[in-house]
Amino acid sequence: MMSSNDTLPRFADVLAAAARIAAHARLTPIASSRSLDAISGARLHFKCEQLQRVGAFKFRGACNAVFALDADTAARGVVTHSSGNHGAALALASQLRGIACHVVVPEGAVRSKLEAIEASGAVLHRCAANLSAREAACAQVQADTGATLVHPYTTTEVIAGQGTAALELLTAHPDLDALVVPVGGGGLAAGTALTMQALAPNCRLFLAEPAGADDAAQSFARGVLEHDVIPDTICDGLRAGMGAINFELLRNSNARVLTVDDAQTIAAMRLLWSRGKQLVEPSSATVLAAVLANSALFEGSKVGLILSGGNVDLDALPKLFALVTASAA
Amino acid sequence: MMSSNDTLPRFADVLAAAARIAAHARLTPIASSRSLDAISGARLHFKCEQLQRVGAFKFRGACNAVFALDADTAARGVVTHSSGNHGAALALASQLRGIACHVVVPEGAVRSKLEAIEASGAVLHRCAANLSAREAACAQVQADTGATLVHPYTTTEVIAGQGTAALELLTAHPDLDALVVPVGGGGLAAGTALTMQALAPNCRLFLAEPAGADDAAQSFARGVLEHDVIPDTICDGLRAGMGAINFELLRNSNARVLTVDDAQTIAAMRLLWSRGKQLVEPSSATVLAAVLANSALFEGSKVGLILSGGNVDLDALPKLFALVTASAA
Repeated sequence: MMSSNDTLPRFADVLAAAARIAAHARLTPIASSRSLDAISGARLHFKCEQLQRVGAFKFRGACNAVFALDADTAARGVVTHSSGNHGAALALASQLRGIACHVVVPEGAVRSKLEAIEASGAVLHRCAANLSAREAACAQVQADTGATLVHPYTTTEVIAGQGTAALELLTAHPDLDALVVPVGGGGLAAGTALTMQALAPNCRLFLAEPAGADDAAQSFARGVLEHDVIPDTICDGLRAGMGAINFELLRNSNARVLTVDDAQTIAAMRLLWSRGKQLVEPSSATVLAAVLANSALFEGSKVGLILSGGNVDLDALPKLFALVTASAA
Repeated sequence: MMSSNDTLPRFADVLAAAARIAAHARLTPIASSRSLDAISGARLHFKCEQLQRVGAFKFRGACNAVFALDADTAARGVVTHSSGNHGAALALASQLRGIACHVVVPEGAVRSKLEAIEASGAVLHRCAANLSAREAACAQVQADTGATLVHPYTTTEVIAGQGTAALELLTAHPDLDALVVPVGGGGLAAGTALTMQALAPNCRLFLAEPAGADDAAQSFARGVLEHDVIPDTICDGLRAGMGAINFELLRNSNARVLTVDDAQTIAAMRLLWSRGKQLVEPSSATVLAAVLANSALFEGSKVGLILSGGNVDLDALPKLFALVTASAA
């Protein structure tokens, strides 16, 4: 669902986003761990977006999109169809600007996540759990209210906003040899690519992707966007297929996809918890899993890793941990 | 077991400790969470000692004790009888100074913790799991090697070192209304009291204690040190009885003990994980549990809380979480 106003963002848009969100978003810390350095054989610098507002990098893009609107457009509100971190982020950004936020949510969405979205004053619109119902419901809200669609990863300002995480990381560590980010729809990946091209053209970009949702890996291998992957992964933040604009941006960036299976991801998540003391969700742990599974690529290097979020369902932990043996962490 | 060289530390000893450990210990971050502020009705500032080396504040005291030794004494090594965070902290501090470290460990100690101690080059000495066997084994090591005993919470330099956490917190937030720390043996509590008396005499000191190991609460109520509490709590860092020197320091500080039961602690731990994104162990969560259970004491106040450590056994989580209903976090 690429709307007509999705134009290719440039690095100047990332800089504009940084200025726009500075008063609202957190400048998140960058963590390191001697223990994880020893395990990986590399020097790892973790950008802690689990400590961003709403617990995920998604607040950067949503905040940029909301505050980029002119006053008249903003007054008609915004709409999206994510019941996850993007929905919560857009709801909070809208509350901060004092505008209406509509979130289309499919039947069966997690109750606690919907409560978080409602707590920020957003209006929920229920629809059936399929793409066409979701798009129809969004279009209806737009028609009824004049609200602006803020897509979770294809909207220009969203991509530019996500690029500010790498901007902060590369400002603190301009000499990174490699940067690893998770890839789902590609908003964070594309924004990161924009920032790297401008600030660190010799730094290699790696995209960590669940093997059970490897449309990016397939798309890169074939040179055309793959639409037909049915996701099967515990990484709930990375189930979306890559957007067309995101693929276009990333194809020109020499990014390389590294796939990891869920057991590798959960083992890495346990290491991030037990050794790094970083409370991250499974999607975030794909980046460490990718480094550990490809040691020849990273050994001896200075590596940046964006920990994308920390919204983990604690009640699901026994199920997640069952994916790996206890000895793995 | 108060050794003859345990003298009452003063604030000057805390300042000396800060200078001594600066090159080795981390200046840990201070975190806040709008969500936890809303839940508590107070402004909470969390000192993140789970991000200290070895994952606990214990490194401060152990490091101070090791680096305070003169060269000849240091050359004979150090000895302690903690298989927990203090043992790991003393092992690392000794490795950093390049001296021998002996750790007396009882039969049945957790294997992963012993491996962590050995990884820092310490020598393990096994003994039966009772106090007299432990003291005899320590005395034997001292007789054989000339090593200096570094007690987990009564050694003067250990208490002074633990006081540096509050020193950093009060330097960043001199206007705290209250400060809450966990209490077990009383090393952190006594060190904190020293710092507060000097820097923030009007700030109230609260000691969070598990109801199942409430010897401090009983000792404060009766005015004499209670020795006969048999601990029954999931807070493995807070099972020790308070030391005599610690009690003496704390009696003069107007500290107040707040007891919390394990269910309150685990509910608070889940909130620290899910809302604060702070990966803390149960003992650390007692401080938030105490604030939430005593809202009349803290409402509207600016409160400092020392998160003591983050060494949680991930495989034990299902058992811990079973203590509270899923809806609590």
